[in-house]
Amino acid sequence: MRQTLDHLSAIKPILASQSQRRKELFTNLNIAFEVHSANIDEDSLLDDDPVKTVIRIAREKAYSVSEIYEHSRFIVAADTVVSIDNVILGKPKNAEDAFRMLATISGATHEVYTGVAIQYGKWAADFYECTKVEFDEIPKADIFEYIESGEVFDRAGAYGIQDAFGLAFIRAIHGDFFNVMGFPMNAFLRFLKENQSQILGNAGSE
Amino acid sequence: MRQTLDHLSAIKPILASQSQRRKELFTNLNIAFEVHSANIDEDSLLDDDPVKTVIRIAREKAYSVSEIYEHSRFIVAADTVVSIDNVILGKPKNAEDAFRMLATISGATHEVYTGVAIQYGKWAADFYECTKVEFDEIPKADIFEYIESGEVFDRAGAYGIQDAFGLAFIRAIHGDFFNVMGFPMNAFLRFLKENQSQILGNAGSE
Repeated sequence: MRQTLDHLSAIKPILASQSQRRKELFTNLNIAFEVHSANIDEDSLLDDDPVKTVIRIAREKAYSVSEIYEHSRFIVAADTVVSIDNVILGKPKNAEDAFRMLATISGATHEVYTGVAIQYGKWAADFYECTKVEFDEIPKADIFEYIESGEVFDRAGAYGIQDAFGLAFIRAIHGDFFNVMGFPMNAFLRFLKENQSQILGNAGSE
Repeated sequence: MRQTLDHLSAIKPILASQSQRRKELFTNLNIAFEVHSANIDEDSLLDDDPVKTVIRIAREKAYSVSEIYEHSRFIVAADTVVSIDNVILGKPKNAEDAFRMLATISGATHEVYTGVAIQYGKWAADFYECTKVEFDEIPKADIFEYIESGEVFDRAGAYGIQDAFGLAFIRAIHGDFFNVMGFPMNAFLRFLKENQSQILGNAGSE
């Protein structure tokens, strides 16, 4: 793993995301990286299928930032949605939207999908990770209090697993915790290890 | 939940633990609490059964701190162990011990048990939570690097799920993430809600 991290650090990846949690997870890995958030129209890329949605949006983010650097840099982008009963929940647009989302996930199990896309020169690759999350019944008063805190608005499904709200009401998860935070680091590192030649090959051709 | 948290805050619980992670989880809840770590002989309380072990140690910690306050305060204590193939892993005693533990959990699934004990006046109660953790195969070089970091020594099973090591090598969990960090807050809050009368009753009799 050290070798993979050293290779990654040497090419200084660009994280195409403005998510504070994603930055934190990259920081925790102790690798060198930069941030350049993508500016794309996500709404036009939505699909009924959560996997297609997160892959499509992540690819678009990665490609758009790669273009800015004339495809000379290693770009990694991600998109996260919540899926429950065939309905996809992104970030809430307002307090009513947040209430609807939190009432939907209360007392139920939903899936969190994160799509990850990499663009490095001509090499484009992607994968996704899914984690199941079981929520307790959430009293309405707690939903209102959480919405008032303002924390809900930049979170897919209107909650953060790392918030006091998640700490209190999430009974169990099945899968990668960090995927629910917004980036499946374990799957990403395994993916890089399996594709080490692409990283080295592209780095060599610069 | 707000009501439960307000009641808890009003009686200012004492956390009988010196674990930095447990303190963090209590801090994240935004409740008033104090810390008074217990000083007990854990080795004499070990059992072949992980549930018996964590409950016994947690009860002993809670009772010993409660005595100091002449049983006037709400004391909460916890103990965490890792269990794999009928072997219990506590905190490693030295680097060799840590290596043995990390080699054991590599490429396998283990269980993390946390026992929680509450002592409040004459009321004593306890429960436990279990989370399954799936680890990737961990290269020996990464085990050595992690041991050298020194982070392994105050962690049951010689790892922290919140460390870069956990971020990199844990493929999935089944159950409560925060239980693996050392305290099952979701189960604790549900337990308090179900036993609200005990908290109020005892607080009233002071």
